[in-house]
Amino acid sequence: MQELIKGLVVKNDTKIVFLVLDGLGGLPWPEGKEKGKTELEAASTPNMDALAKVSACGLHMPVSMGITPGSGPGHLSLFGYDPLEYRMGRGILEALGLGIEVKNTDVALRCNYATLREGIIVDRRAGRVPTEESRKLTERLQKELGRIDDVELIFGPGMEHRFAVVMRFPQALEPGSANINDTDPQKEGTAPVPLKASTPQAERVVRIAEGLIAGAQRVLKGEPKANYILMRGFSQTPVMPSFEAAYGLNALAIAAYPMYRGLARLIGMDAPALEGDLKEELALLRLKWNDYDFFFVHVKKVDSYGEDGNFEAKAKKIEEMDSHLSEILKLNPDVLVITGDHSTPALIRGHSWHPVPLMLHSKYVLGGLTESFSERQCLRGELGVFATVKLMPLVLSNAGRLKKFGA
Amino acid sequence: MQELIKGLVVKNDTKIVFLVLDGLGGLPWPEGKEKGKTELEAASTPNMDALAKVSACGLHMPVSMGITPGSGPGHLSLFGYDPLEYRMGRGILEALGLGIEVKNTDVALRCNYATLREGIIVDRRAGRVPTEESRKLTERLQKELGRIDDVELIFGPGMEHRFAVVMRFPQALEPGSANINDTDPQKEGTAPVPLKASTPQAERVVRIAEGLIAGAQRVLKGEPKANYILMRGFSQTPVMPSFEAAYGLNALAIAAYPMYRGLARLIGMDAPALEGDLKEELALLRLKWNDYDFFFVHVKKVDSYGEDGNFEAKAKKIEEMDSHLSEILKLNPDVLVITGDHSTPALIRGHSWHPVPLMLHSKYVLGGLTESFSERQCLRGELGVFATVKLMPLVLSNAGRLKKFGA
Repeated sequence: MQELIKGLVVKNDTKIVFLVLDGLGGLPWPEGKEKGKTELEAASTPNMDALAKVSACGLHMPVSMGITPGSGPGHLSLFGYDPLEYRMGRGILEALGLGIEVKNTDVALRCNYATLREGIIVDRRAGRVPTEESRKLTERLQKELGRIDDVELIFGPGMEHRFAVVMRFPQALEPGSANINDTDPQKEGTAPVPLKASTPQAERVVRIAEGLIAGAQRVLKGEPKANYILMRGFSQTPVMPSFEAAYGLNALAIAAYPMYRGLARLIGMDAPALEGDLKEELALLRLKWNDYDFFFVHVKKVDSYGEDGNFEAKAKKIEEMDSHLSEILKLNPDVLVITGDHSTPALIRGHSWHPVPLMLHSKYVLGGLTESFSERQCLRGELGVFATVKLMPLVLSNAGRLKKFGA
Repeated sequence: MQELIKGLVVKNDTKIVFLVLDGLGGLPWPEGKEKGKTELEAASTPNMDALAKVSACGLHMPVSMGITPGSGPGHLSLFGYDPLEYRMGRGILEALGLGIEVKNTDVALRCNYATLREGIIVDRRAGRVPTEESRKLTERLQKELGRIDDVELIFGPGMEHRFAVVMRFPQALEPGSANINDTDPQKEGTAPVPLKASTPQAERVVRIAEGLIAGAQRVLKGEPKANYILMRGFSQTPVMPSFEAAYGLNALAIAAYPMYRGLARLIGMDAPALEGDLKEELALLRLKWNDYDFFFVHVKKVDSYGEDGNFEAKAKKIEEMDSHLSEILKLNPDVLVITGDHSTPALIRGHSWHPVPLMLHSKYVLGGLTESFSERQCLRGELGVFATVKLMPLVLSNAGRLKKFGA
């Protein structure tokens, strides 16, 4: 499908905005004054409701019916990349989340500080090293082990015993370079699992990883607990066409959280560092309006409150977004999509498999089918329930950016 | 997709019930006091209607738009096995329907008693031997031809001139072992078609089948009409992962008809023999409630009345089920699915291609979209019209039995 689209793409000067409220979809709350309403239904959203009435509405499924997507698959789908074809490894996402950029020259992995006695793991988490302490250890590792052979090592301190490492090789890596087992045996009282390459391309990476383990043992020698590192989730970036190559779109990602900027950079979007929240994001959108074709605006907190099981705060965050909607509309985008990357019902306190409400506003929609913006109303919309990966072609067409297929 | 699901499955102690009203879906009746209503709309089903209001509703398509499924594809789809990938041969279904268990060591086929004169078939049905007579003949064949070489032969008497044979080999058979033509020429006045293996794996089976034909001619020598047997539908069980391997579910099939128990056993469900109807089925459900994760409860008569073109009796059977619904709800299943394996509109007097109404009840649904349980109401539901094979992942997620895909 991406090949087909590529052949149909034309360029013009239209502007497309994806406003992604992370974890937008919800479920009815079982009690209290909002009983029976979803977060979107409970939130007072007069501006989105009015827009939904004149938009194409529907719900989209990021992976497949019943499958709960992680943030990686959720966003890849929105951008038109089949998440079953392009798998994003745990190490890559961890590194992105810690703000480390990853490229096609890199292998990323997650590490734990652990306690090793006479070759046996006696504590897989080194007594859950406090974050402040582990940060100092990780900075020492960075200082002492910045390079092994011609490979640059980039360390990303994480929470407690966790950190990430990106190995940056001098050239782009072949696919299969990260097919390496975890050394974490997942239980204590046993030796670490030796590293083994499952493909010939991964052998070079194994040698660097072995060097890293030995180096870390040297650096951490005097530590009472955190004297060893365990490795998990070796991964490399999937080989994906860039957003520009796939759609001819010059794209800007506006996201306050590092992971989403990192995801966007993987497909070649510009993603400047940004602190703050909605206000700062919308200021950047205005500032850069003339410089890009496509704007991915990511609002994280909707998901965060869903993960906390905080129904009310999630609804409030949606209301806050609604009160800023006019600022986006003032820019007069040719296509405005408002949706999420997956559902995060407060009831479930986590991502869920439920399809995600979506509205697509442009001059070329039916509209007139929904009274407000919610899961139940979107079911009445002209888009029905559809696979997320099919959204991008629809968006391009609404922006006049796709030619006819066939004569 | 089944591979993906397998990697995401987790176990817990939730209980899942599939209540399958065989042939549930219907069409508007053209006359009389129920004119314009489907069987489900005509039936008074206050309990299912109330449950539908707070359930996820939709309609599912067992094979594809416009394709009428047999019972095999209908049930395989419901259980999450793609019916286009896993083909169930006619011989297998015939044997299952006659209550003969079939395994991966078996080739099953359908046979007809026929009349042969000087090498020519003069009657393909041996004058439609009365069932009582043919049963005796088949018992004689069983007694005289219980084994050829190391292959056990199991005969299943059928109606009139029909019977089934299962050839049980000592070891599991390779795929392709039943690629053998029918000997039935489909017309009289011609010789039987010689057996021929289309694949090398089928040659051994051909030799046994030839032995069976010759043996039967010996045994039936003195018969005035039924002196020969014609063969059709050579088939073996598709190689399918078991339900337990695919989903981690320990499953019980509760079905009064042998074919449905046989189908369930093919994927490793326990399926104890059972006589009776709804009452006995629900008694078994209660009895075994603590021993299984998944319960497939099959109600045959809904389909049977549809096949008879008896609109009223089909509606009544649905009403009867409705009056028992509270017995299932009392058990408090975590996920309850009520649906059919295909539609059997009384108007059509047979299976049909129409999608099948479904409700899925769990704590994690939107609900509030339908007023009752019917084809037309289900179209308003949150599940829309979907491929049946996608149901199982949704069910697993609703039972908390699927992890997130990707990070």
